[in-house]
Amino acid sequence: MRKQKNVRDSYVRMTELVLPNDTNTLHNLMGGRMMHWMDIVSAIAAQKHSNRIVVTASVDNVSFRESIKLGNVITLEAQVTRAFSTSMEVHITVWAEDIPSGTKVKSNEAYFTFVALDDAGKPLPVPEAMPETEEEKEKYAGALRRRQLRLILAGRMKPNDATELKSLFDIKD
Amino acid sequence: MRKQKNVRDSYVRMTELVLPNDTNTLHNLMGGRMMHWMDIVSAIAAQKHSNRIVVTASVDNVSFRESIKLGNVITLEAQVTRAFSTSMEVHITVWAEDIPSGTKVKSNEAYFTFVALDDAGKPLPVPEAMPETEEEKEKYAGALRRRQLRLILAGRMKPNDATELKSLFDIKD
Amino acid sequence: MRKQKNVRDSYVRMTELVLPNDTNTLHNLMGGRMMHWMDIVSAIAAQKHSNRIVVTASVDNVSFRESIKLGNVITLEAQVTRAFSTSMEVHITVWAEDIPSGTKVKSNEAYFTFVALDDAGKPLPVPEAMPETEEEKEKYAGALRRRQLRLILAGRMKPNDATELKSLFDIKD
Amino acid sequence: MRKQKNVRDSYVRMTELVLPNDTNTLHNLMGGRMMHWMDIVSAIAAQKHSNRIVVTASVDNVSFRESIKLGNVITLEAQVTRAFSTSMEVHITVWAEDIPSGTKVKSNEAYFTFVALDDAGKPLPVPEAMPETEEEKEKYAGALRRRQLRLILAGRMKPNDATELKSLFDIKD
Amino acid sequence: MRKQKNVRDSYVRMTELVLPNDTNTLHNLMGGRMMHWMDIVSAIAAQKHSNRIVVTASVDNVSFRESIKLGNVITLEAQVTRAFSTSMEVHITVWAEDIPSGTKVKSNEAYFTFVALDDAGKPLPVPEAMPETEEEKEKYAGALRRRQLRLILAGRMKPNDATELKSLFDIKD
Amino acid sequence: MRKQKNVRDSYVRMTELVLPNDTNTLHNLMGGRMMHWMDIVSAIAAQKHSNRIVVTASVDNVSFRESIKLGNVITLEAQVTRAFSTSMEVHITVWAEDIPSGTKVKSNEAYFTFVALDDAGKPLPVPEAMPETEEEKEKYAGALRRRQLRLILAGRMKPNDATELKSLFDIKD
Repeated sequence: MRKQKNVRDSYVRMTELVLPNDTNTLHNLMGGRMMHWMDIVSAIAAQKHSNRIVVTASVDNVSFRESIKLGNVITLEAQVTRAFSTSMEVHITVWAEDIPSGTKVKSNEAYFTFVALDDAGKPLPVPEAMPETEEEKEKYAGALRRRQLRLILAGRMKPNDATELKSLFDIKD
Repeated sequence: MRKQKNVRDSYVRMTELVLPNDTNTLHNLMGGRMMHWMDIVSAIAAQKHSNRIVVTASVDNVSFRESIKLGNVITLEAQVTRAFSTSMEVHITVWAEDIPSGTKVKSNEAYFTFVALDDAGKPLPVPEAMPETEEEKEKYAGALRRRQLRLILAGRMKPNDATELKSLFDIKD
Repeated sequence: MRKQKNVRDSYVRMTELVLPNDTNTLHNLMGGRMMHWMDIVSAIAAQKHSNRIVVTASVDNVSFRESIKLGNVITLEAQVTRAFSTSMEVHITVWAEDIPSGTKVKSNEAYFTFVALDDAGKPLPVPEAMPETEEEKEKYAGALRRRQLRLILAGRMKPNDATELKSLFDIKD
Repeated sequence: MRKQKNVRDSYVRMTELVLPNDTNTLHNLMGGRMMHWMDIVSAIAAQKHSNRIVVTASVDNVSFRESIKLGNVITLEAQVTRAFSTSMEVHITVWAEDIPSGTKVKSNEAYFTFVALDDAGKPLPVPEAMPETEEEKEKYAGALRRRQLRLILAGRMKPNDATELKSLFDIKD
Repeated sequence: MRKQKNVRDSYVRMTELVLPNDTNTLHNLMGGRMMHWMDIVSAIAAQKHSNRIVVTASVDNVSFRESIKLGNVITLEAQVTRAFSTSMEVHITVWAEDIPSGTKVKSNEAYFTFVALDDAGKPLPVPEAMPETEEEKEKYAGALRRRQLRLILAGRMKPNDATELKSLFDIKD
Repeated sequence: MRKQKNVRDSYVRMTELVLPNDTNTLHNLMGGRMMHWMDIVSAIAAQKHSNRIVVTASVDNVSFRESIKLGNVITLEAQVTRAFSTSMEVHITVWAEDIPSGTKVKSNEAYFTFVALDDAGKPLPVPEAMPETEEEKEKYAGALRRRQLRLILAGRMKPNDATELKSLFDIKD
C-alpha cells in the first residue's frame, strides 16, 4: 500500500533579506528573484514530502501586487497540498516586511508542482499527502481543478474534458 | 494620440550558460533560476517598448518538460505581444542546447506581464504595440483571453464576465 | 519608561539549500558561508526586536562539529535573548538535514550581538527583551556572563571585574 | 618524527573590495560577509601549512568595532599560530581602508581553527608549526589558553581542568 | 578532409542588465565584469563552432571608452572569425543602451582566442571557419596579423618573423 | 609641482579560491573570472596611487597558458608601473597553486590601464609614479612602448608615429 504522510510534515519557512542586487534602479525587488526564492522553498517542501531530489514541473500564475523594497525582510512559507502519482503540488505564501516602519503585507501566493526523481533522473512514486485542517482540505480539493488548468495550458488536455475546472465557470455538461 | 511601436522593436535575445550554482545535486537546472532569467529578458523587452523602468506584474503558467543539464547553453527570446494602458504582455521562448552532443530543444514558453513606472514608482501609459506578422497577430489576439484568465486567477474578475476566455471552452452565453 | 517586548516576538526561521559554491572540493559546506547565514538570520531577529537597522557588534565562539554536505537543507532559528541599552544578544540554532537519507542533526549553536542604529549610523536605545519560558529565562540570565567574557576578550574589561563570569570557574572572591 | 614547518610559511594576504551586495541599507559592510572572507583567508593559511583540504572546526569571539563602508578596501592577513595533532589555529588581522580619504584602520582580529582531512573526510595529522619572531612565540604560547576556552565553551572540558585559562583570572589552584 | 563550417553558424547574442554589484561607487560598470561577460559570450561562439568544451587561450587589447551606468542594458555579439588547427579567434562587439534616455552606443570591440578540449583536457582539431560576407572575409584575413602580434607579445615569436604584422607599419623586408 | 609617489606604495596582493561557479564543465577556471579578479586587484593599486575612484581604460593582451583547476589558490599581485597625466598603467602577476600537490606556477601577466575620476566622473590629474628597483625602472621605460601599441590598436595613433614601438621591430626611420 502507498505510504501516507500529513501535508503539515512538509511545511518549510524561509526568510530572505532584499539586497541591492535583487532590485532594479528604483530599488524594487525584481520578480524573477522572488520566483527563484519561491522555487527553492517549495522544492524543499516537496523534498521533505518525498524524501527525494525533485525538479520543478510547473509554476502556476503568480501576480505581484505589492512593490517590495530594498532592505525588506521576505518570509516564504511552503507546504505540499496534494500528491499525484509522481508529482506534488506545493502552495507558497509570501510576506514582505518593512521593519523600520513596522508594516507587513502578504505579497504573493503561488502553486508550484514538482516531480520526484531517482538517482538516474527517472520519476518516482511519492507518498500520499493527507490534509488535516479545513484549509488543508480545501487546498487538497482545489488541486484537481488547478491540475486540469495546467494540463490545458500545456496543451495536454482538451478543455471539454476538464470536468473539475468547468465548475469554475458554473458550466453544466 | 497614443504613440505606436511595432512589437518587433522590443525583441531581445539573451544567452546564458548553466553553471554549477544553478543546478541541483543531479546537475539539473533549477526552475527558479530559469524563471529569474525569463524575468530579466522579458523586463528588458518591456523596457524597450516603453522606454521606462518596469516591474513584473504577473507570470503566467510555466511548465518545465525538458531536463536541462550543467554546461548547457540557454537561449531566451522575448518580445512584447500587446500593450494595455499601463501594462505590457511579453512572450518568452527558451531553448536549451547541449553543444557537445549537438542537441537543441525548445524547453519552455511563457508570458510575463510588466507595468511601466515613473521615477516616483507610479504606473505610466505605454505606447500601443503593433503586430505585423501572422504569428505576432495571433499572439496579440490571444492576449485578451490570457488577461481574463489572469484576472480571474487573481480574484479580480468573475468567470462569467470573461467573454474571451469562455471561447476556450466553446461555451455559448 | 522603556518599552518592553517579548523575546518570542523576535523569532526568525530561515531555510537554505547548500549549493556548489558554498562547498569545498570535498563537497563540505564552508564554515564562512554558514557564518554568513547566521549573521543574516540573527540580524533580522535583532531588527524585529528593535524596529531598526542593526550592525553586528560581536560573534561568540562557534564550533563546527558536523560535516554538512552539498544538497543538505539548513534550518536556522534565531531569537533575541536579552537587550542591553543599545545592543541585543541573539541566540541561533542550526540544523542540517539530509533529506534522501532522512537524517537531521543540530549542527551549531551561537550567540551574535547587534547594535541598533539611526539613519546617521549612531547607536539607539532598544526595548527591553522579556523572557517567558524557562529556556528563555535561562538564556536571559546567562547573557550577563557571556557579555563579560566578550568584554574581557575584546580587552575592555579586566578579568577580575567579571563577577558573573567567575561563577563559571566556581571562584569565590 | 613529525614534520616541522615555520608558521611564517602559511602567511596569506587577501584583498577585497566592499561591493553593494555586501552592505546593509546604511551602506555598512555586514558582519557575516566579513566572517566569510575571514574563513576563506584562514582556510588557505591552514591548507598551506598542512598541504591538505581543511574544514573549519571553530571560530573564536570576533568583535566589530569599526563601521566599514561601501567602496572600502579590506585587507586580511592570516597565519597559523600553532598546530595540534590534527588541527591548526590561525590568527587573522583585518584592515579597512577608505582610499579617497586616506584612512586605514585595523578593524578586527580573530582566531579560527581548522582540521585537515584526507580524501575520505577523515582527520589527518598535520606538521608542527614553529614560531620564530617574538610575536609568533607569544601567539604560539597563548594558543593553549584559547584552546581550553574553546573546549569549555563547547562543553568538552570542565572549567576546573583549564589550567592555562585560569591564569587569565590569576587563580591559584 | 577537415570539416568546414560557416563563421555565421557560431553567432551568439547575449543581453545583460547592469546590476548594483557590477558597479563601482560612482555607479559605473567595472571593466572586469564586462570582460567576464565577453568571455562567456565568446566561449559559447567557440563551442558552437567546435562542438566542444573550450578554454580561453588569450584576450587581445580591449579599450573602454564609454562609461556604462547602473541599469544599462548590455548587448554582446560574438562570432568566430577564423579557426587555426586547435584554436579559434572570436570577435565580440558590445553595445550599451540607456533605455529611459533612448541612447545606445557601441562601447567595446575585442578578440578572444579559445582552444577546444577533449574530456581529458587535451587540445583537439577544430573545423575550418568559412567567411561569407565582405566583413567576415576582412576579419578572416586580419586574423593572421593579430595572431602574430599575440605570439610576439607572449614571447613566442620574434618580431622580425611577423611578416603579416609588419604590414601594419608599412615595412618592407 | 606635481606630487610624486613611489610605485611600490601602490602594491596590492589578493588571494582567491577557485570555486565551482568559476569553472567550466571540465573543472577549469574560466578566463573571464580571472580577468574579473585582475581588474579588481589592479583597480585597487591604481586607487592607492591616485587616492581616487578609478575606471578601467584598457586591458592589454593576456594569454592563458596554464589550466587552473577547481580548488586552486590564486594569488594576484598588482603594482602601478607608470602614471601619465590622468591615467596609470598597472602590472599584474598571477600565480596558481595546487596545495595538496604542492605545485605553484606563474599563470599570467598583464597590464591594465586606469583613469582617475572626480565625483562627477571627470578625469583628474594623478601623482607621478617613481620607480626605484631595476625591475620597476624597466617596466616604467616599457610603458611608453605599450602605450603606443594601445593607441594604434584603438585607432588613435598612426603606426608610423609610434617611435617607441618601432624599436620592437628594430626599425630605423
